[in-house]
Amino acid sequence: MTSRIPAQVGMALAEVETPALLIDLDALERNVDCLASDLASSDVRVRTHAKTHKCPAIARLQIAAGAVGVCCQTVGEAEIMAYGGIDDVLVTNVVVDPAKILRLAALARLCRVGVCVDDESNVNALDDAAERMGVGLQVLVEIDVGSEQCGIAPDDALSLGRTITECRRLRFGGLQAYHGRAQHLRTHQEREAAVKRAIDLVKRAAAILERGGIECETITGAGTGTYPIEVESRLYTEIQPGSYVFMDADYAKNRNRDGTAFDRFENSLFVWTTVVSRPTPDRAIVNAGNKTVSIDSGMPLVYGVPQATYVGAADEHGRLVLSPTDETLAVGEKVRLVPGHCDPTVNLFDWYVGYRGDRVECLWPIEARGASI
Amino acid sequence: MTSRIPAQVGMALAEVETPALLIDLDALERNVDCLASDLASSDVRVRTHAKTHKCPAIARLQIAAGAVGVCCQTVGEAEIMAYGGIDDVLVTNVVVDPAKILRLAALARLCRVGVCVDDESNVNALDDAAERMGVGLQVLVEIDVGSEQCGIAPDDALSLGRTITECRRLRFGGLQAYHGRAQHLRTHQEREAAVKRAIDLVKRAAAILERGGIECETITGAGTGTYPIEVESRLYTEIQPGSYVFMDADYAKNRNRDGTAFDRFENSLFVWTTVVSRPTPDRAIVNAGNKTVSIDSGMPLVYGVPQATYVGAADEHGRLVLSPTDETLAVGEKVRLVPGHCDPTVNLFDWYVGYRGDRVECLWPIEARGASI
Repeated sequence: MTSRIPAQVGMALAEVETPALLIDLDALERNVDCLASDLASSDVRVRTHAKTHKCPAIARLQIAAGAVGVCCQTVGEAEIMAYGGIDDVLVTNVVVDPAKILRLAALARLCRVGVCVDDESNVNALDDAAERMGVGLQVLVEIDVGSEQCGIAPDDALSLGRTITECRRLRFGGLQAYHGRAQHLRTHQEREAAVKRAIDLVKRAAAILERGGIECETITGAGTGTYPIEVESRLYTEIQPGSYVFMDADYAKNRNRDGTAFDRFENSLFVWTTVVSRPTPDRAIVNAGNKTVSIDSGMPLVYGVPQATYVGAADEHGRLVLSPTDETLAVGEKVRLVPGHCDPTVNLFDWYVGYRGDRVECLWPIEARGASI
Repeated sequence: MTSRIPAQVGMALAEVETPALLIDLDALERNVDCLASDLASSDVRVRTHAKTHKCPAIARLQIAAGAVGVCCQTVGEAEIMAYGGIDDVLVTNVVVDPAKILRLAALARLCRVGVCVDDESNVNALDDAAERMGVGLQVLVEIDVGSEQCGIAPDDALSLGRTITECRRLRFGGLQAYHGRAQHLRTHQEREAAVKRAIDLVKRAAAILERGGIECETITGAGTGTYPIEVESRLYTEIQPGSYVFMDADYAKNRNRDGTAFDRFENSLFVWTTVVSRPTPDRAIVNAGNKTVSIDSGMPLVYGVPQATYVGAADEHGRLVLSPTDETLAVGEKVRLVPGHCDPTVNLFDWYVGYRGDRVECLWPIEARGASI
């Protein structure tokens, strides 16, 4: 909330106070362009996921490169994207709280809004709110394709689809079929097997709906870890990659095992940190711990210093181990960490410090940080 | 940064949107009173750690109950505490960035400021900044008593202590000797053994300094998990508990193993969450995941619903497992989660929703959220 701006445009990167969340703008732009060129010869739409960056400035870059709109995970994120100028927002989640449903309907006065459902009573609540606000909402049925989070089984799709088509203000949009768990499986073979199971479930749901006279205009899902597989299926009409703009250490593990599968994207997101203590020859303490770099998917990597291993995160400190004869990483030295997991790391900061070469070029507010409600 | 206020004073708790960070004010006040009465017959000072709550309003309650001031982990936290009316702030950490050292010295124009050192060159940088600002700083030598973070070995204390006493603007205050790792050891025996090793190291450092003519006015450390042991030592002059105001699921594990050791404090901090999906009879999905409840020290507990187990956190979802015959936790129902780890969970929210009974009584800004710089 107290948003001390961590840098000034034009200053040397070396002078930026730590910890700070850095974006290598050249790498970010290459990632955005790379996804666009990857999909250029396909008729699959790209709807980038804004839960990763939580920043309308980045969403606008993605849309300029061809994305049709953004995905969000919360109504709060959707509001911030809409207020930031994005005119097509899909909440890839169910929305249950009555206050949130009303906010979602109100937002549809400003831009195109879609949302997911996996429960009959929720459909009626959405329709009532849309009627009250005088708006239309696009509604997707969420299918559980293997993540064991929200979502119905394919056989239940027709009943839910019919309920939607009978509503006054809701338009049945199709299926939300995102396999979150598959994104982080280690090998291409494992990811392909998981997505193929998902594809079978989606086909089943779509066929059941079609027999009931309901067409799926949109079948959407897929993330950075699997989207080439969904695109190849010719079943998905839309993909939802988020992490590709930044990448992280967890995705890097897959790159190392897979060879080519993840080579197309680069690390563009870093936590800038200072060595604050060198208590022993083989230990360096940096000022980036658990409150500035999320460790839910593993420890960060020390970028460009392969001999240093980040082995433990206290709340405000990270502990690096290095060879006792190594003379790098003196007290006061600054290094970049590649976060273990990009999304929750972004959610710890209020500002991105965008740099090109060795100079700060922009400060982008992470406007949807903490927008969990 | 976008701080949608999550509730209104006077509203029913049941109406508060989720996820929200709740404080049971009765429980919080009992925790504050309990620590005060625990120390009432002792001459050990209490300096509560503000890294836990990051909120001047709570710091003021602690000081009203007898705390001499607060600890902070960052200069940003210290600034916010000072601006919030706290007049005695100790940064229990080394401060290395030149810009931060200058901010720390500037803060000493407003209130009493202390800081830790573990490096000779850092002492001189602090003295130069204090001279430039025309202020005095209290400086403690940080001893590594077992956490393997920052801190020197006891035998190096005299050299560093002498450097401090020779400065123009620095006053040698004593020793910072906090054993972070010992707080979370599972049994009283393990914690006691760890703290006794710490005490031996502190005695050694203090004796070396004394032989060199330097007296340790303050020996400070200890947290919620161990402070009765440090108090009993009659060596520590000050303790730094933070988590006791809130407690969490990790501390609860120790309570369950120890019987009485942690019974004195109650859970007062909760993440308020809604069941958004019941895809199968044995699965409930809540809207509190990794971005609203920190899992670095284990999963949260579902308060008052012992048959439900929070088994996995996605970024925006939590997955609960319960018996297939259990009919609790319908879609739309709200429950309280006890966070696995209080400090990093607090760092995800901008507001506390304080309630008493079933009504919201206050909204306290978490002013130092994200104040990592």
